[in-house]
Amino acid sequence: MNCKSIFYILGWILRVEGLFLFLPMIVALIYGEDTWTVYLICAALTFAAGLALSWKRSGNFRLFAREGYVAVALGWVLMSLIGAVPLWAAGDIPHFVDALFEIISGFTTTGSSILVDVEAISRGGMFWRCFSHWIGGMGVLVFLLQIIPLSSGQIMYLMRAESPGPSVSKLVPKVRETAFVLYGIYLAMSVLEIFFLLIGGMPLFDTLCTTFGSAGTGGFAIWGDSMARYSPYLQIVVTVFMFLFGVNFSFYYLLLTKRVKEAFQIEEVRAYFGIFAASTVLIAFNILSQVGNLADSFRHAAFQVSSVMTTTGFATTDFNLWPEFSRTLLVLLMFIGACAGSTGGGIKVSRILMYLKTIKKELAFLVHPRSVKIVMMDGKKLEHTVVRAANIFLITYLVILAFSILIVSLDGSDFTTTVTAVITTLNNVGPGLSLVGPMGNFAFFSDLSKFVLMFDMLAGRLEIFPLLLLFVPYTWKK
Amino acid sequence: MNCKSIFYILGWILRVEGLFLFLPMIVALIYGEDTWTVYLICAALTFAAGLALSWKRSGNFRLFAREGYVAVALGWVLMSLIGAVPLWAAGDIPHFVDALFEIISGFTTTGSSILVDVEAISRGGMFWRCFSHWIGGMGVLVFLLQIIPLSSGQIMYLMRAESPGPSVSKLVPKVRETAFVLYGIYLAMSVLEIFFLLIGGMPLFDTLCTTFGSAGTGGFAIWGDSMARYSPYLQIVVTVFMFLFGVNFSFYYLLLTKRVKEAFQIEEVRAYFGIFAASTVLIAFNILSQVGNLADSFRHAAFQVSSVMTTTGFATTDFNLWPEFSRTLLVLLMFIGACAGSTGGGIKVSRILMYLKTIKKELAFLVHPRSVKIVMMDGKKLEHTVVRAANIFLITYLVILAFSILIVSLDGSDFTTTVTAVITTLNNVGPGLSLVGPMGNFAFFSDLSKFVLMFDMLAGRLEIFPLLLLFVPYTWKK
Repeated sequence: MNCKSIFYILGWILRVEGLFLFLPMIVALIYGEDTWTVYLICAALTFAAGLALSWKRSGNFRLFAREGYVAVALGWVLMSLIGAVPLWAAGDIPHFVDALFEIISGFTTTGSSILVDVEAISRGGMFWRCFSHWIGGMGVLVFLLQIIPLSSGQIMYLMRAESPGPSVSKLVPKVRETAFVLYGIYLAMSVLEIFFLLIGGMPLFDTLCTTFGSAGTGGFAIWGDSMARYSPYLQIVVTVFMFLFGVNFSFYYLLLTKRVKEAFQIEEVRAYFGIFAASTVLIAFNILSQVGNLADSFRHAAFQVSSVMTTTGFATTDFNLWPEFSRTLLVLLMFIGACAGSTGGGIKVSRILMYLKTIKKELAFLVHPRSVKIVMMDGKKLEHTVVRAANIFLITYLVILAFSILIVSLDGSDFTTTVTAVITTLNNVGPGLSLVGPMGNFAFFSDLSKFVLMFDMLAGRLEIFPLLLLFVPYTWKK
Repeated sequence: MNCKSIFYILGWILRVEGLFLFLPMIVALIYGEDTWTVYLICAALTFAAGLALSWKRSGNFRLFAREGYVAVALGWVLMSLIGAVPLWAAGDIPHFVDALFEIISGFTTTGSSILVDVEAISRGGMFWRCFSHWIGGMGVLVFLLQIIPLSSGQIMYLMRAESPGPSVSKLVPKVRETAFVLYGIYLAMSVLEIFFLLIGGMPLFDTLCTTFGSAGTGGFAIWGDSMARYSPYLQIVVTVFMFLFGVNFSFYYLLLTKRVKEAFQIEEVRAYFGIFAASTVLIAFNILSQVGNLADSFRHAAFQVSSVMTTTGFATTDFNLWPEFSRTLLVLLMFIGACAGSTGGGIKVSRILMYLKTIKKELAFLVHPRSVKIVMMDGKKLEHTVVRAANIFLITYLVILAFSILIVSLDGSDFTTTVTAVITTLNNVGPGLSLVGPMGNFAFFSDLSKFVLMFDMLAGRLEIFPLLLLFVPYTWKK
C-alpha cells in the first residue's frame, strides 16, 4: 500500500471541497446570515489542509487498483466528515452525528434527512446540503481528474472505484476526455433545468436547490411537503429532468455525436424507458380512485416513479398513503434503480438486464445441456468477468442488506420502517415507507442505526467494494 | 421431449399416492368417520390410473435432463391436484382452491394453512394433511427410485431435479443405494421421534402428526396454538428433532459408517450449528424481559430458531409478538434455511457459505488483481459450475420473490403480511409475521394470491428450475 499517493489524492479532494465551501458562504452573505464566518473558516482551513497534503507529489508515487479503491473510499469519508462541520458549527444541526448523516445523505445523493423541520434551516445550510447532491452525483474524483496530473492508467483506477455500474465505459479513447464530456453534459443539463424552472416562476434559490437534487438524483426537500406546493408545470419539469438524469450518459454522447439510431438501441436505455412507462401506467390506475381524475393520477404516478426509480426521492404527494400495490411497486423500483453511467443509484437497470438474460440462458441450458449459449448485450458478447462481477455485487449487496436490517431492527421500529429505511439508504433513494415515508424523517433512529444507514449510503454510492476493502486487514498490508 | 416416458413416471407417482391414500382411510375408519369411503374411492381410482399409465414401458423410453425436470414438476402438480380431492370431497375444506393450497403446503413441507379453525377438521383429513409432510420431505421420486426399473443415469436425472441443495451428493457409488440409505435414515429417525414423544405422554395420533411435521420439516399445527399446549419436555424433544432433520443427511451416513471426525468436519454442518447457537442466544436475551426467566427464554428461543431455520414452522409461542429484533432475525433465518441434503427448505446453509466465500475471494482479488484464489469447501476446490449454478439460483429466486410480492400486494394487506407471506412460502417455512404470524392463517388471501403462493411453495421445494421449465416454450419442442 502506497500511503503517500493516497494522501496526495486526499489532499486534492480537500482542495476542491475547500473551494466548494466558499459557495454557501456567499449564499449566507447574500441572505445576511452571521454564519458566513463558519463557512469561511471551514473553507479556508480545508483548502489549506488540502494544499499541505498535495503540495508535492512524492517521488515513489504509485497508484494501482488497491490505492484507487482506498483513496476513493477514504476520500468520501473524509469529505463527509468535513462537510458535516459547518452544518453543525453553524447551529443548523446541533448533534454532530445527525450533521454527518445529513451530509453523507447529501454527497451520496440519497436525500434521507434527519431534519424534523426542514424549513427552519438557514439559507447557507440549505444551499450546502443541496449542493452536496450536485457534487456527489457525478463524483468528486471524476471532477478532479480534469485537474490532477495523473496517467490515464491511474485515472482509470480511480474512475472504476467511483463510477456506478457494472463496467466503466469510455466514451472516447482517452479517460480524461471521457470525464470532461461527462461533466459537460451534466453541467449543460443542469443549466437547462434551471432555465425551465425559472420560466415556471420558481424562485431562484428553489430553482438551484431543486436542480442540484434532480441532477445528482439526490432529493433533499427544501419544504416540508417536498414538491407538493409547486405548480403542475414545475412538477412535470422536475419529472422529466429526474428521468433524464437517470439515463446512461452514453446515450447523450451518442446523440451529441449524431448517432441517434445507435443511442436508442442501447438495451439498458430501452429497458429503462419500458420500466418507467409500465410502472407509471400501473400506478396511475391503481391510485385513480384515490386521486380522482386520470390526469392528476398520471402526473403523480410519473413523478413518483421517476423520482424513486432514478433514486432521487422528491415527492409531490405522500405515497406512503397509496394503495399497497403502488407502495410495493415503488419499493421494488428502489432496488432496480437507474441506468449505469447515470447519477442514479440502485442495482442499475443494466445489471437487472444481465440477471434476466442469465436466467433465460440457464433455462435453455437445462433443456439442452450441451448448448453453449452466449449472453449478448447491445450486440456484443458479455464477458464472463462482467457477469461474475455483477453476481458478486448482488451477493454482497444482499449480505449488507440483511445485516443492516438486523442491526437497525434493534431500535424496535415496525418491520416496514426498518426494512424500507435500509432499502432506501442502500439504494440512495431517500424516503421509504411508514415512519420514513416521504413526509417522515430519519431523526428518531438511534446513533447506532444512523451509523449503519450512513455505511449503507456510502456503500450504495460507491457500489460496496471500495468501502468494504477499508475493513479488510490485508488491504493494509505492505 | 419424450412424452411417453413422462407419462410412465407420472403413472408410478400415482400408484404410490394411491397406496398412501389408503392410510387416511384406515384412520377415518378407526375414528368412525363416514368419510373413509371418500379416501377409499380416491385411493382406488388413483392407483388404477397409475397402473394404466405405467402398465407397459414404451419401447423408445428415453429419460434425459429435460424429461427428468418435466416429470418431477408435473409429478408434484399432479400429486397435489389429486391430494386435494379428498380434503375437499370429505367436506373438510369446502373451497377447492383452499384444499389445493393446503395439500401443496403439505407436500412441499411448508405448513402454511388456510384453516381458520384447525381443530375442527376430521381425523382422516388431519392425518392426510400431516402425512403429506412426511411424503414430501424426502420426495416421492426418491421413494420411487427404489421400485421403478430405471438405469442409474436416469435415476440421477430425477434425483437432481427433486433434491434440494446446490449439488446431489452420492453417499455411495450407486444412486439407487443412496436413495435407499436416505430413506432408511429418514424412517429410523422418525421412529425415534415417535418413541421419545410417546414417552413424554403425547397421544399417539398427535405423536404421528407431530413427527410427520418435524421429519418433513413441514409444520402443520394440529392445535390452534400449534405446540404451546405441550409440556416443556415434549417441546424440547421436538426442538431437537427439528434440528436433526435439518442436518445434511451425509452427516448421519458418515456417523453410521464410523467416520465421526469427517462428519463433524463438514463445513455446512458446522455453520448450521453455529447459526443455530448464535441465533438462539441472541433471541433468548432479546425476549428475556418479555418471557421472565432465562430457562423459558432459551426454550422458546431454541424452539423457534430450530423451527424457522429448518423451515418447519411449529411454534410454542406467538413470536409475532416478540421484539422487532427477534422477529427480524427469524425472517432472515427463513432465507438461510437448513442444510442441503436435509428435508428443510430455504436457500440452504451450503449456498450461503459459498456466497460468503465468494465475497472473501473477491475482496482479495480486488487488492491483488493477479492473485488466483480458489474457493474451497470441505477441503475440495469448488467447481466453477457449482458456484455458477448457486448464483443463478439466487438471481432466479429473487426475481420470483419480487414478482410474487408485487402480485400478492394487490390484495391490499399490510406490507409486513404481504412480504413475509411470500418469504415464508417460497422458503417452505409456514408462518410469517403480522396477519400470517404463527397464530394467524392464510385463509383471507384472494384466489390469485393463493395461486401465487402455491407456485412459490412448489418453486421453493423443487428449487425453482423444474417448475419454471414448464412455462418455457422450448421445453415442449420436439
